[in-house]
Amino acid sequence: MSGAETHLANDLDTLHEELFNLIRIPSISTEPDHAADVRAAADWVAARMRRAGLEAAVEPTAGHPLVIGRNAEPVPGAPTLLVYAHYDVQPAEPLDEWHSPPFEPSVRDGVLFARGAADDKAQVMLQIAAAAAAIRGGGLPLNLILAFEGEEEIGSPNLIPYLYDHRAELAADYAVIADSMMFGPGRPSLIFGMRGMAYFEMEVRIGAHDLHSGQYGGAVPNAANVLSAIIASLHDSDGSIAVDGIYDDVAEAPAAVREEWHKMGFDEAAYRAGAGNATLTGEPGFSTLERLWIRPSIDVNGMISGYTGTGKKTVLPCHARAKLSCRLVADQDPERVAGLLEAYVRKVTPPGVDVSIELVQSNRPWRMDPESPLFHSAATALEDVFGVPPVRTLSGGTLPIAPDLRDALGATVMTMGFALPGANMHAPNEWFPMDHFHRGARAMLRLYSELAATV
Amino acid sequence: MSGAETHLANDLDTLHEELFNLIRIPSISTEPDHAADVRAAADWVAARMRRAGLEAAVEPTAGHPLVIGRNAEPVPGAPTLLVYAHYDVQPAEPLDEWHSPPFEPSVRDGVLFARGAADDKAQVMLQIAAAAAAIRGGGLPLNLILAFEGEEEIGSPNLIPYLYDHRAELAADYAVIADSMMFGPGRPSLIFGMRGMAYFEMEVRIGAHDLHSGQYGGAVPNAANVLSAIIASLHDSDGSIAVDGIYDDVAEAPAAVREEWHKMGFDEAAYRAGAGNATLTGEPGFSTLERLWIRPSIDVNGMISGYTGTGKKTVLPCHARAKLSCRLVADQDPERVAGLLEAYVRKVTPPGVDVSIELVQSNRPWRMDPESPLFHSAATALEDVFGVPPVRTLSGGTLPIAPDLRDALGATVMTMGFALPGANMHAPNEWFPMDHFHRGARAMLRLYSELAATV
Repeated sequence: MSGAETHLANDLDTLHEELFNLIRIPSISTEPDHAADVRAAADWVAARMRRAGLEAAVEPTAGHPLVIGRNAEPVPGAPTLLVYAHYDVQPAEPLDEWHSPPFEPSVRDGVLFARGAADDKAQVMLQIAAAAAAIRGGGLPLNLILAFEGEEEIGSPNLIPYLYDHRAELAADYAVIADSMMFGPGRPSLIFGMRGMAYFEMEVRIGAHDLHSGQYGGAVPNAANVLSAIIASLHDSDGSIAVDGIYDDVAEAPAAVREEWHKMGFDEAAYRAGAGNATLTGEPGFSTLERLWIRPSIDVNGMISGYTGTGKKTVLPCHARAKLSCRLVADQDPERVAGLLEAYVRKVTPPGVDVSIELVQSNRPWRMDPESPLFHSAATALEDVFGVPPVRTLSGGTLPIAPDLRDALGATVMTMGFALPGANMHAPNEWFPMDHFHRGARAMLRLYSELAATV
Repeated sequence: MSGAETHLANDLDTLHEELFNLIRIPSISTEPDHAADVRAAADWVAARMRRAGLEAAVEPTAGHPLVIGRNAEPVPGAPTLLVYAHYDVQPAEPLDEWHSPPFEPSVRDGVLFARGAADDKAQVMLQIAAAAAAIRGGGLPLNLILAFEGEEEIGSPNLIPYLYDHRAELAADYAVIADSMMFGPGRPSLIFGMRGMAYFEMEVRIGAHDLHSGQYGGAVPNAANVLSAIIASLHDSDGSIAVDGIYDDVAEAPAAVREEWHKMGFDEAAYRAGAGNATLTGEPGFSTLERLWIRPSIDVNGMISGYTGTGKKTVLPCHARAKLSCRLVADQDPERVAGLLEAYVRKVTPPGVDVSIELVQSNRPWRMDPESPLFHSAATALEDVFGVPPVRTLSGGTLPIAPDLRDALGATVMTMGFALPGANMHAPNEWFPMDHFHRGARAMLRLYSELAATV
């Protein structure tokens, strides 16, 4: 065991108590009444970083502050690793569904229950613990930047501008997003990409007002029927997306990684149970994981037209609206996809029908090379700690900051986290396995060493 | 001029005043607070029938009463004509859009403005006026039954059971529904059929709860997309209905009548303006009028799924609902159509998706032979009064009582009314041309004579 690891192990009880103290600060970023708590959590984190031996600053933004910690003295010739996490949390409601108070940590059978346990305070604290142990054990072997924000739960409105405004100070070779889960218990994972998103509001209008179906039914088009036809036309009968050009920019995933996925024992039955026992279907030629990870999707998120109350109304609706979103994969660009979708919708819309489709949110997909030194170093570190090599996965979800960490800072970006699936993030009884606090910090210490050797 | 017509002309001022008095009773059947007014209108109508020389009764129902008037003495060997109308009215709201008080008759430039002017009190009163004139002029030449209900505006819940319960007393050779419009100014019309309706609630369910589009999008079907696909599949690309067997029972319309329609100068531009300038489209091979009159239609009346509020929610909805209705034509049966639609929907629904479709209202279509004696007699009567032969039309709407008048009473049924298109029925500033009161009553007198000669 290295000196750093010994210090970490010896300090563990104190570190746990410190994590509990951080959890006791209800830093709920969504609630204006808790602004002082968010600020208190930022101050607490910065103070703890300073005690660890880091230089730390609470950086103001238009909203809640960022906390930036880094080596007091740079390590010349060593690479720079930036670790992103967040110290804000979701609201705790519904309170009556918690088995213990959300802001009073409760450890039961080795599991910590509290708001923020998994998302993301244990991960904030284990990063500080690793840095502290490294410094006590002889000094950080690389240049470390801990960038912890207080607005993740409200969509990070100020983080990305901050990254670009401070790109010189924050420039990093590597960036780790420390806000994710493992593939399963005992199954560490590294995420090398996530899907992006293009979110649309679509509206179909016909005529000027709703019409009586007796007087017009069969002779005048119906906005609800036309909207349905447009939506139906978005997919071919085999389940693939019919929008012309939609797959043009879709990148291949490395064959070696796809091979790993087939072997890693994805529990499709458990996944299906999580989907409320829905049937699993999708684009032909791809597995469920591949459909989620390397293929784009397009879904209606909501739609409404005409009379939706109780009983009957014999009306032809004059307008119909849908919220539509595409999950995008590398190297799709949301703006280009919006152009393709609009052109396609116009192509399939019958003459005389007024259709509008507006892009209301766009997030780029993000994907890195899973054979890069960051991934190999992290794989070594995780295998040392968990005894098995990590799976290299993607995610079907969207993490807006990932492509900006890459582009603003020039970093290779990876997501590595230690929560477990089903951690009740954003729900009552959020939990985090206590032993993952120690393992996660140990893995970070190993990662420092591995990365220090890469440049 | 016959004696009856002379009496009618001489009594016109008094008859107008009586109509105004009937209008002044706010017999709003939809509003429980006006139940006494509805009853007062029934009593007024029955009393007026008696003064005309008819035998009249206010017949109680579970709701508002019917008023039944008939010859004091039967005319042996003469046919029986039943005339249906209604003495109840719609609410007058929005009151501030009326140019004169809704229940105070106002005659401006020969047009009567008031709630119930067109729908249906002028038509109630002109029927009584015709009967009164015939009786004063020497006696009714046939057996007349005036059946006026007080629940038309609430869907006639008690009328049809009453017809079947009293089918022996009400048996008629002919029935005229006196609650409709002419084709246009100076263009009388006879309606020999109307579309029926089958109204459905459809629901698609997938899984047990909404799903996150990042975690499931592309791998799990989406209830909103599936519902849209089902709706889209209801029509072929050419605009015809794709439901297997849907056209099997559709009756041909007489070629002679279709020929008349092509020549009668249907103002498609005005119709289109009434549709808010929507493009007119539909089943190929049929004109706009034919699409409305002799072809079935299927329309979404409302649909809802997922998140429909402001902003974004990245959810795959687990359920989606639509209200769907078919307008049916002779000889389609609503129950059979419901069976065909359900079979079709099940055929096009993907495996693993739970779909339900429930028939929540059914009204049979109705169509009579436009060459029958009733139509020839009425055509003669209308040509005498208006100087031009009537057009024989159908209607795209639905009149639930028409097929039951036929089936319960054994009558040939026809709709003949004297309001004009755009009469603002159910809207502010409802109107009726004053001279149509006299013309309508004259036409009825002629019809009595013509029909008396048919048996």
